[in-house]
Amino acid sequence: MYALGVDIGGTKIAAGVVDEDGNLLAQVRKPTDPSDAANIDRSIAEAYQELSASYEISAIGLAAAGFCSPKRDSVLFGTNIAAWRDYPLAARVAELTNPAIPVVVENDANAAGWAEYRFGAGRGTTDFLVLTVGTGLGGAAVVGGELVRGRYGMGTEVGHMRVVPDGRFCGCGQAGCWEQYSSGSALVADARAALVAQADRAERLLELAGGNPQNLTGPMVTTAAHEGDALAIEIFANLGQWLGAGAASLSAFMDPEVIAIGGGVCDAGAVLLDPTVASFEKHLSARTHRPALARIELARLGNEAGMVGAADLARR
Amino acid sequence: MYALGVDIGGTKIAAGVVDEDGNLLAQVRKPTDPSDAANIDRSIAEAYQELSASYEISAIGLAAAGFCSPKRDSVLFGTNIAAWRDYPLAARVAELTNPAIPVVVENDANAAGWAEYRFGAGRGTTDFLVLTVGTGLGGAAVVGGELVRGRYGMGTEVGHMRVVPDGRFCGCGQAGCWEQYSSGSALVADARAALVAQADRAERLLELAGGNPQNLTGPMVTTAAHEGDALAIEIFANLGQWLGAGAASLSAFMDPEVIAIGGGVCDAGAVLLDPTVASFEKHLSARTHRPALARIELARLGNEAGMVGAADLARR
Amino acid sequence: MYALGVDIGGTKIAAGVVDEDGNLLAQVRKPTDPSDAANIDRSIAEAYQELSASYEISAIGLAAAGFCSPKRDSVLFGTNIAAWRDYPLAARVAELTNPAIPVVVENDANAAGWAEYRFGAGRGTTDFLVLTVGTGLGGAAVVGGELVRGRYGMGTEVGHMRVVPDGRFCGCGQAGCWEQYSSGSALVADARAALVAQADRAERLLELAGGNPQNLTGPMVTTAAHEGDALAIEIFANLGQWLGAGAASLSAFMDPEVIAIGGGVCDAGAVLLDPTVASFEKHLSARTHRPALARIELARLGNEAGMVGAADLARR
Amino acid sequence: MYALGVDIGGTKIAAGVVDEDGNLLAQVRKPTDPSDAANIDRSIAEAYQELSASYEISAIGLAAAGFCSPKRDSVLFGTNIAAWRDYPLAARVAELTNPAIPVVVENDANAAGWAEYRFGAGRGTTDFLVLTVGTGLGGAAVVGGELVRGRYGMGTEVGHMRVVPDGRFCGCGQAGCWEQYSSGSALVADARAALVAQADRAERLLELAGGNPQNLTGPMVTTAAHEGDALAIEIFANLGQWLGAGAASLSAFMDPEVIAIGGGVCDAGAVLLDPTVASFEKHLSARTHRPALARIELARLGNEAGMVGAADLARR
Repeated sequence: MYALGVDIGGTKIAAGVVDEDGNLLAQVRKPTDPSDAANIDRSIAEAYQELSASYEISAIGLAAAGFCSPKRDSVLFGTNIAAWRDYPLAARVAELTNPAIPVVVENDANAAGWAEYRFGAGRGTTDFLVLTVGTGLGGAAVVGGELVRGRYGMGTEVGHMRVVPDGRFCGCGQAGCWEQYSSGSALVADARAALVAQADRAERLLELAGGNPQNLTGPMVTTAAHEGDALAIEIFANLGQWLGAGAASLSAFMDPEVIAIGGGVCDAGAVLLDPTVASFEKHLSARTHRPALARIELARLGNEAGMVGAADLARR
Repeated sequence: MYALGVDIGGTKIAAGVVDEDGNLLAQVRKPTDPSDAANIDRSIAEAYQELSASYEISAIGLAAAGFCSPKRDSVLFGTNIAAWRDYPLAARVAELTNPAIPVVVENDANAAGWAEYRFGAGRGTTDFLVLTVGTGLGGAAVVGGELVRGRYGMGTEVGHMRVVPDGRFCGCGQAGCWEQYSSGSALVADARAALVAQADRAERLLELAGGNPQNLTGPMVTTAAHEGDALAIEIFANLGQWLGAGAASLSAFMDPEVIAIGGGVCDAGAVLLDPTVASFEKHLSARTHRPALARIELARLGNEAGMVGAADLARR
Repeated sequence: MYALGVDIGGTKIAAGVVDEDGNLLAQVRKPTDPSDAANIDRSIAEAYQELSASYEISAIGLAAAGFCSPKRDSVLFGTNIAAWRDYPLAARVAELTNPAIPVVVENDANAAGWAEYRFGAGRGTTDFLVLTVGTGLGGAAVVGGELVRGRYGMGTEVGHMRVVPDGRFCGCGQAGCWEQYSSGSALVADARAALVAQADRAERLLELAGGNPQNLTGPMVTTAAHEGDALAIEIFANLGQWLGAGAASLSAFMDPEVIAIGGGVCDAGAVLLDPTVASFEKHLSARTHRPALARIELARLGNEAGMVGAADLARR
Repeated sequence: MYALGVDIGGTKIAAGVVDEDGNLLAQVRKPTDPSDAANIDRSIAEAYQELSASYEISAIGLAAAGFCSPKRDSVLFGTNIAAWRDYPLAARVAELTNPAIPVVVENDANAAGWAEYRFGAGRGTTDFLVLTVGTGLGGAAVVGGELVRGRYGMGTEVGHMRVVPDGRFCGCGQAGCWEQYSSGSALVADARAALVAQADRAERLLELAGGNPQNLTGPMVTTAAHEGDALAIEIFANLGQWLGAGAASLSAFMDPEVIAIGGGVCDAGAVLLDPTVASFEKHLSARTHRPALARIELARLGNEAGMVGAADLARR
């Protein structure tokens, strides 16, 4: 039984046919205009027409950046697509494709997390957390085999859990949000601060930035860390310290079996993962009473996770 | 269809017959010896015999303080009952009662929270959080209509989520745990500290404590606050500030519709609830984007919640 | 006995004749070019020539923004004047004026604080702290009747004392510096965050900013607070909370008799001062053991404090 | 010119003859009763009589645990000696010894710090900080060559500067005081917490404590750290992290040339000092602008510092 999964980005969609084992059998991409909701609907319909010529599609899953309705039929607030305000996305797509098959709308982080749960690091578990360390800190969670969505579709905004009272300002208007300590943005902010406060140790980072702290990027910090630069390694260790401590705190609530860490910052590998695991173990409540500690693993699925997860959720 | 719910305390059990609407139709209590697991099993069986004479019991739910197995058949670690270490409680009770009916073991806070969800403040919701402000800070959560148990039965230990890095020491060996800021123990600790640091404002509290700070109890702080004592009111406001901020942080993860606040400290009423709500609203992420804010309400069920919830869970 | 006090700003100097009681008898102002150290020296000399025609000047005090040498004869690092790097300012000015009279260089915040000590809120005390809540948080301190300069002329950088581990980023490259919580910049940052997180309470602030959060300024927050706007008052209360708590912490070290609060943010008056005093008293260590609490007062001297203090220091 | 220095403890006094180079030429000790102020006065007088037989004593300095008057003639509040409440100690001692020579009363930490400044690690500096890491965290400071006493004799209570808002409770009734993170008590509290939270890494510490966490002492942690025990080393590193960060924060205020670390916890040596220095350098504001960093050194004087410093202060 095949399902169509569509990952709707700000300026393009990626649509793919997914089988019951999470394999992506075929896919198409189409550019879209974020200011025009109807053109996105049509692009999805076109992708459906093309792919349904060769595959019998029994369900359509749409992964959207934003808050989705609890009934999973509309987008309440689209993060990148201004035209999505209480937008009945499922109904529109159903009209243009096949009203006889189910269309499900899901938050993109949830869709990707679900794919990771079903076919990646979370396979075989029932309680699972994904932390996506990208520009910000996103996530998805599975509790007792079910995706955590929240009453208003606003659940698993893990990046906005508070980890430091009166801490760093967050774009959300609060302070001390976890993503200000454990994200690509945090990495860059930490590194730029180090260029000022620890200029005498920051020679390599400054060189990579071409002499201008404002040009420093996360991948440059990764490069320096991989070269063995002590300051860059320290910056990753600090990020991992917060990532692990936050994961431990959240584990006191949801007690997962596996925590998958994904997102671009994970390209750093062991310089991030090792301190994350150490901090997680150090801060985990009742650690020595636990039958087993949650395993912290790298996420296994890449950019296709949104498509795969949306398709799988639509089929359920 | 009737179920038997049993709340197993440290030195006694309370067993009751619960109907499908959560009504407690009859109950018995029996003293028990915490050092002897078998006597607890027998007491439960006796209660069953007595009550099943008048009611047809179709399931038995056992609420136990401690970590329970994910299969809900045994107690991995009993908090108050030293004899419970990987103890197959459900099987023992089934042998002594009626092997034909299901016996389910559940953590007591979860059982009570489930009762609150089904028949109390959480009725009609799907995403629900209970925070129990007693000696410590306990809780239970329902996500998408399902109780959060965790992979190893160690979920919803909300009191051990970290709210202040390098904060107050906790008996669990960590520091900055939420329950060190939002519990009856925290209330007393705050008040005793105020007796030292703000002796000039603490006349009434000291008087209530008979002149000895070590004799100060939580109910005394409640009394003073209800009398209008400025310092006592401030101490409750501080506790509420932490309770609300933590609830906001957790809501970024689980996005509940209702948060019920229970436990003995809630006897304080508005001096605790009002600042809790104000702090929750202030700290809630994406507050102005939400279709609705979670409602913070007092828990409605009292000491019988454990029996009622255990019975209801056993029947499902 | 008259002394000349010169406040050297980024683009102008102000020079004045000061008598032994701190009265400013005459003054002149001259534009200067911050990229050319020699033109500043000459402008000072011109001011001296003009004023010494009518007043017998026995000493010259120069207030400079930057780190000054412990011997008070040179500027090690000029904050606004790039040409000042280990610059022998006193010798240059002496050459161009009157080599027979002493020339003393002092940090501008120290000079202004000294004036406040001798002729303002600190008069008659021996242990005195000034906190200047301007764009940043500056200060000066007198201990046992002597100005605190530090071994390398880098003392009383109070704005960079750490008040929150892992707190808000500071331009100095550290995090959690006091000035990130108690300054005009902090006020604006707090208010902008509130415009996002508490949009529903921020109508008046947004209106004052012409609808654009980026246009919000500190004086607008003051205006709103004076009008009775609850959010603006809350923002000042928060700032005062940090200002008072920091002052209490520093008082554990220096035990001052008077703490003067100055700088532009103080135009807010009671909405800032009242919570500052309350927080100071709440957080002061050993408060109830103290013979008296430090008095927190508004600074009394205005923009002329730099000149007056520099002159007075030169005469000693 | 010889001076008598007397260190007045809770149950004994130590009195010694000190020359101008800080050498202790002779000393006597006498038991005292802390409930009887007059017997302490008499014991001091006896010591004076004995020692003045061989040395011509020109001044008497008394080091007392407690808050001393700014005029240095009385004890406002004796920490260990309940009979000292506004007690005119200098006058009483003068009556019983030689009314013709000056008698000066100084806080014991200040006296010891002064000795360290004049004859120990601070020799030759003008701006100097001593941090005494004993049961609590005490200290003394010299600014511009003068001892920091404070307006009410309550200065340099460094242990009660706040380093963590809402942090660990302090016996003073406040929370987050520096001494809760950097003292012998903090060391033991940290180690006991680790015995719970990290039981699997705490085998050696538990063994040293004879199997009972309540028996664990600071010296045991030192022993384990010197043996190479990873957990004990980590505990010292954490303490050093706080000690260095606090010293950096205080250096933003007083800009010392030398910071001496003393007290019993320093017996740990490099396991404490190395992380202290690293943290100090990491957190020091404007580090790369400084002509030189403050040197962190071990204090050089031992238990005799109180006598030596009191004597030296009396002679000035």
